[in-house]
Amino acid sequence: MWKAVVTAAVAFVLLFCRSSTLDNGLARTPPMGWLAWERFRCNVDCVDDPYNCISEQLFMQMADRLAEDGWKELGYNYINIDDCWMSMDRDDQGNLYANKTRFPNGIKKLADYVHSKGLKLGIYLDFGTHTCGGYPGSIKYLQKDAETIAGWGIDMLKMDGCYANVSDMSWGYPDMEMYMNKTGRPILFSCSWPAYAGGIKVDLVDYSVLAKHCNAWRNYDDIQDSWDSVTHIIDWFGDNQDVLAPAAGPGHWNDPDMLIVGDYSLSYEESKAQVAMWAILAAPLFMSNDLRSISPEARSILMNKEVIRISQDSLGMQGRRVIKVYDKIEVWLREIEYASYGVAFLNRRTDGMPYNYTLTLQDLNFTYMKGYHLDDLFSGQPLGHFELNRNLTVSMAPNGVVLIYAYPSE
Amino acid sequence: MWKAVVTAAVAFVLLFCRSSTLDNGLARTPPMGWLAWERFRCNVDCVDDPYNCISEQLFMQMADRLAEDGWKELGYNYINIDDCWMSMDRDDQGNLYANKTRFPNGIKKLADYVHSKGLKLGIYLDFGTHTCGGYPGSIKYLQKDAETIAGWGIDMLKMDGCYANVSDMSWGYPDMEMYMNKTGRPILFSCSWPAYAGGIKVDLVDYSVLAKHCNAWRNYDDIQDSWDSVTHIIDWFGDNQDVLAPAAGPGHWNDPDMLIVGDYSLSYEESKAQVAMWAILAAPLFMSNDLRSISPEARSILMNKEVIRISQDSLGMQGRRVIKVYDKIEVWLREIEYASYGVAFLNRRTDGMPYNYTLTLQDLNFTYMKGYHLDDLFSGQPLGHFELNRNLTVSMAPNGVVLIYAYPSE
Repeated sequence: MWKAVVTAAVAFVLLFCRSSTLDNGLARTPPMGWLAWERFRCNVDCVDDPYNCISEQLFMQMADRLAEDGWKELGYNYINIDDCWMSMDRDDQGNLYANKTRFPNGIKKLADYVHSKGLKLGIYLDFGTHTCGGYPGSIKYLQKDAETIAGWGIDMLKMDGCYANVSDMSWGYPDMEMYMNKTGRPILFSCSWPAYAGGIKVDLVDYSVLAKHCNAWRNYDDIQDSWDSVTHIIDWFGDNQDVLAPAAGPGHWNDPDMLIVGDYSLSYEESKAQVAMWAILAAPLFMSNDLRSISPEARSILMNKEVIRISQDSLGMQGRRVIKVYDKIEVWLREIEYASYGVAFLNRRTDGMPYNYTLTLQDLNFTYMKGYHLDDLFSGQPLGHFELNRNLTVSMAPNGVVLIYAYPSE
Repeated sequence: MWKAVVTAAVAFVLLFCRSSTLDNGLARTPPMGWLAWERFRCNVDCVDDPYNCISEQLFMQMADRLAEDGWKELGYNYINIDDCWMSMDRDDQGNLYANKTRFPNGIKKLADYVHSKGLKLGIYLDFGTHTCGGYPGSIKYLQKDAETIAGWGIDMLKMDGCYANVSDMSWGYPDMEMYMNKTGRPILFSCSWPAYAGGIKVDLVDYSVLAKHCNAWRNYDDIQDSWDSVTHIIDWFGDNQDVLAPAAGPGHWNDPDMLIVGDYSLSYEESKAQVAMWAILAAPLFMSNDLRSISPEARSILMNKEVIRISQDSLGMQGRRVIKVYDKIEVWLREIEYASYGVAFLNRRTDGMPYNYTLTLQDLNFTYMKGYHLDDLFSGQPLGHFELNRNLTVSMAPNGVVLIYAYPSE
């Protein structure tokens, strides 16, 4: 009897919450995994480039790597399809289906394979009339497409916003969330809505509404394989942090886009900087790289357990840029559990030598009177105990970062 | 008797040439070596940073590395001091001398050490009233300073142009060349003259005059530790190639500044791109990095014998950008001996995937009817024989290069 009452009460609470926040229970920490787009784009040429084309084989191979090379255990458990997986037309019943040449066994079989590896499968749709790559869009098929992907066993949806009116997104993304919820299958929902609505324009983007309907959302430009792109994104998130940071939290995250570590353009120092900053930003950690041939250096950065611990902190508070010196030295701070902090010192200088920057924990408004213990998470070295007024000197490489974990001393 | 006549004739010819070209016989191919500036800057803090400060110890350690790690045998035989080596004042006789704390044994002893390793020593002066770092300038002491550095056994001089009037450079740099020649010691002369004169302004820079007085000259901005800086320099050299390329040749070279491979900002692909482009540009190859801790990847790029062979080709013709597609794909061509070519395919795209670019040798205006053999110099792979009209498809990584050696087929 009591059990039934409790169950009914829980159901009522869930129903009540329905109207105020996304109720799929997913993404309590920033989701992690792998996403095809940045590295493999819309490569549909399986004749001349079978190893790299968008095909079930590519996703199965990446799933193997996630499952067998230690990624899964660290939390990288989503493997996500992006654009260009579909047939160019819907079937006679209006259903989406995968390109039969490149996905001869269909998405459901691929999902089964991914699940058999202990991973989750993400897929891509577009809210508009067409995907960015010109494949069928979902605007007239939201319920049908929600049911289709749920039927396939999809675990995450990235819904893009090409070929759509921004004004339609305010009903379209919530409708899609509703239809996915109706299927009964928990599907992590990544919305491209704010990126198409200008990211930060108050009349077009209400982040409190977003958080009710999406588990994550792309706010800004697509990342490209360049340090220039990474720093533009970091700058944008810093410049707009007063709007963005309060919007993030367990279940709903700002998404500065994929990790490009392991690709062609980032140096070792720049690679550490991207991962550190994404951890401070409480960003989803979706690698877009070739896990079949990734270098040991890139792997070691992406697999740093202590950095991932900052990323996945249970408080879910997005970090902020708290110091910016002449556009060259930045200090970013993320509050994490147990009155601790992640602190990223980011060096934008390119003048040859590592740069020494000195401050005290008081300068960062740390308040615990007994001081803090500091660990350098990339060197793996403890830096020792720091009273609030003790000078801390950090040596940052050009285009480099030092990421510190600070926790209250006993 | 005949010997005396010949000797007199040779002397007469040399005297005659004196007025039309630099007669020190140096730099018949682009000079190679190591230069302190980009990586170690004006770090004079030997108390807190003894391992990296500008000191005789730093140069002796780098000389050891050049001599013992295989660099010297490949042609990297200059080890060059840049700014911040001097005492802040001249001595009572007006002579320059090194900072006594950081160079306790003086420059002559350092030159002896460098020579004992089979290397050459370069040094830095400034034509103006002060060096860029504020140390004594040479404008009133050209003859004295020429005699001083010759007396020390210096083999190369980089003469900077801070704190000077550009209008004075047209007599100053030639005067310095004359005074160095008078010492009887061959000293490779690198002039910063055109960089201070706007690089390409016809009223301020006459490259035919430059070639008479300088073995190399900095034309453009200082390089910084970033891919952005590297590409700005490449663009400038391409945009101004009609003026710059004819100015280069055996004994006198345009200098796009140091190689930053092995430093903090370039990825593996970007590192190959800088070295390839510097080879195509017939540029001096002065590394500015830490040879004590350089990565195996960076070392392998800088030590690529086939790439160095392009750089050091005896014809001394500077390459040119011959194809530029939408600012993203560039083809650069350097004519080398035996009717052969170095061809650099440079990819400025950052969109994730390697990019395939197809052309024929006809498109490059190659004319040898039997066709050419092509070798990929970084992969080390022969690409085979290509008739003039056979399609060649090159796959370039983002921010990457493919460097090909093309030689006439038998």
